[in-house]
Amino acid sequence: MTKINKDYTKLKSSYLFSTIAKKVREYEAANPGADIIRLGIGDVTRPLTPNITAAMHKAVDEMANASTFKGYAPDLGYDFLRKAIADNDYKARGCKIEDDEIFVSDGAKSDSGNIQEIFGRDNVIAVGDPVYPVYVDTNVMGGRSGEYDEATGRWSDIVYMPCLEENGFAPVLPTGSKVPDIIYLCFPNNPTGATIVKSKLQEWVDYANEHGSVIIYDAAYEAYISEPDVPHSIYECEGARTCAIEIRSFSKNAGFTGVRLGFTVIPKDLVIEGVRLHDLWARRHGTKYNGAPYIIQRAGEAVYSDEGKAEVRGLVKYYMDNASYILNGLKSAGLSVSGGVNAPYIWLKTPNGLSSWEYFDLLLDKAGVVGTPGSGFGPSGEGYLRLTAFGDKERTKEAVDRIAGIVL
Amino acid sequence: MTKINKDYTKLKSSYLFSTIAKKVREYEAANPGADIIRLGIGDVTRPLTPNITAAMHKAVDEMANASTFKGYAPDLGYDFLRKAIADNDYKARGCKIEDDEIFVSDGAKSDSGNIQEIFGRDNVIAVGDPVYPVYVDTNVMGGRSGEYDEATGRWSDIVYMPCLEENGFAPVLPTGSKVPDIIYLCFPNNPTGATIVKSKLQEWVDYANEHGSVIIYDAAYEAYISEPDVPHSIYECEGARTCAIEIRSFSKNAGFTGVRLGFTVIPKDLVIEGVRLHDLWARRHGTKYNGAPYIIQRAGEAVYSDEGKAEVRGLVKYYMDNASYILNGLKSAGLSVSGGVNAPYIWLKTPNGLSSWEYFDLLLDKAGVVGTPGSGFGPSGEGYLRLTAFGDKERTKEAVDRIAGIVL
Repeated sequence: MTKINKDYTKLKSSYLFSTIAKKVREYEAANPGADIIRLGIGDVTRPLTPNITAAMHKAVDEMANASTFKGYAPDLGYDFLRKAIADNDYKARGCKIEDDEIFVSDGAKSDSGNIQEIFGRDNVIAVGDPVYPVYVDTNVMGGRSGEYDEATGRWSDIVYMPCLEENGFAPVLPTGSKVPDIIYLCFPNNPTGATIVKSKLQEWVDYANEHGSVIIYDAAYEAYISEPDVPHSIYECEGARTCAIEIRSFSKNAGFTGVRLGFTVIPKDLVIEGVRLHDLWARRHGTKYNGAPYIIQRAGEAVYSDEGKAEVRGLVKYYMDNASYILNGLKSAGLSVSGGVNAPYIWLKTPNGLSSWEYFDLLLDKAGVVGTPGSGFGPSGEGYLRLTAFGDKERTKEAVDRIAGIVL
Repeated sequence: MTKINKDYTKLKSSYLFSTIAKKVREYEAANPGADIIRLGIGDVTRPLTPNITAAMHKAVDEMANASTFKGYAPDLGYDFLRKAIADNDYKARGCKIEDDEIFVSDGAKSDSGNIQEIFGRDNVIAVGDPVYPVYVDTNVMGGRSGEYDEATGRWSDIVYMPCLEENGFAPVLPTGSKVPDIIYLCFPNNPTGATIVKSKLQEWVDYANEHGSVIIYDAAYEAYISEPDVPHSIYECEGARTCAIEIRSFSKNAGFTGVRLGFTVIPKDLVIEGVRLHDLWARRHGTKYNGAPYIIQRAGEAVYSDEGKAEVRGLVKYYMDNASYILNGLKSAGLSVSGGVNAPYIWLKTPNGLSSWEYFDLLLDKAGVVGTPGSGFGPSGEGYLRLTAFGDKERTKEAVDRIAGIVL
């Protein structure tokens, strides 16, 4: 008799976005013709840029011609893209990362979900709270969570690192008796928009090297960093090559959420129990993956051309202008907000001690604006709302003005 | 201290294709200017067809325009593609498969590698011998293999179903004391090119339903079926909805090996331990995958247009003409060959009792032709060589003529 993976059945269904959708539908039904502005979703809205689409058209034409047709791609990525990434994202910043330490994939979600597979089941993982749910859910599926406690909203075997106001909404080093083996860090942070300065990140690297832990560093929002002392890569820190894996994405810089391209960096110096994690991940890619599409990898390469870089800067600026408007507009209205400087997310404290969902309902009702309740990302997100800068400029301004105009 | 996944370290490095490459390099070095013809690799060579590339160009243009831009795709696939698949590949053949039982992915390799994850570790799996290595390797990584026996080339916990001459190179129902929980079947078969008639496949479905087993049916080569009594889908058999998962690909029909698109079908009636496998796979997709690129899904949709279908028939005919030439040419030369009628693979018995590698060396040396040693796919492949029909027509003919001309 076939047996299912019991760890899958432990998963809590996430009702966050479906609950949001249901509430919006109900509001629309009760208020026909209501003009709703969505600042909840972390998806980009601006189209792909000219140099990137030109590269894609060219690649499609190559695929249409027998002499330039490409069959199976190299499992780990085309050399042209791995080199462009290593040169531009790492060597240009003084990070010692070689082309063959880059693993090209179909996106940061796949990589951050699959990476736990190369580790044993008996590792203790640590995550921020609030957190991007993929880190937790994939470790539940991988048998590393223990049991769920409805009262606390937490798993028994997972170490939580609360991201609270007093820490600038970033996790702090675990001090409990349980030393985590695998530490998930996301900077700039989703959902809080917080980030970290280099000296602080160095402390994490030192901690990991000292305790024999591995850091999984999610830098999907790296392009939004605007301040000089914020590191763009964990490999800017000394010793990161022996303890850190970095995951990156083309989704939020070049707008590839529907194009699907990302990469993971595993330095060859990262050796656990005598085995290079680089070799384990290469084996995973070689066995369970067949490479990102040629056309998409050419699009990725175009992101690193001079014209592509300028276009991507334009996209980021568009969204960051939105972020500034949200941040400053709400601040002027007397609300407590953070994030939005090195990240496209604004972390908004609910006024008058409202719960995340109470404030969500209020914004929808009084302003027709949809945010994401912070409690949906973890218990420490209670009392907050996440707003995103990925919307249309005029609509974003309209939303801010409406929120600011609410009299409580 | 972090621990690695020990099951990964059990994996045997596959030296098959690297050994082939090394031997070819050595031959080239010893014979400068030698005219080598490669019939070893399972990769397509014909370019993408006009209607498919037109659909891709159109989709790229949509992505370049704010009003038609697409961000995150639905995790399980766009409705337009799921409907095209269900209508054309299933309903048109009388199979009761609904749109939402189709899960679109980046290819059959990913799906056939990841599918084991939704099952518990304590399942017994059964595979053909010889076999597509992904089925075995991913179950080794998943902890279901037991130990490797160097002498037999087999894993202790896996049930092997030898594909021998007396069975037409197709697996037969296991009769041993160990009843497999999960049975991998691949028809038309890679590597032997064998296939199965509907009445025989029905026996597998009945066996699975009777024993509570699940069949993972890999139909990646379905487009090459030319004989009327060979089923195109396992859902042509009665009762398959309660025991079978089917995996399909656009790689070998439309030439998408470098484009990356495939799908898996899980009927909602397939319930194990009270849980629908459909729900588990949906949860995996939702948590670890972010959908296939919009552009690629539009390319997949174009495969089902009238023009696309005609083009794909042309591609398949091109390769199957090669297959016929190989099959008939080698048969006329007195060699023992099978496959090649419903599959792009020809399974060639080595003459004079040569081993797979001896015959490989001989073909390379005397004819400059590269095949794939059957022993590389499993111990029962010993004494065979796999030739593929995916090459250029003239070069394929030349290769056959050279092989036929060898005097042993």
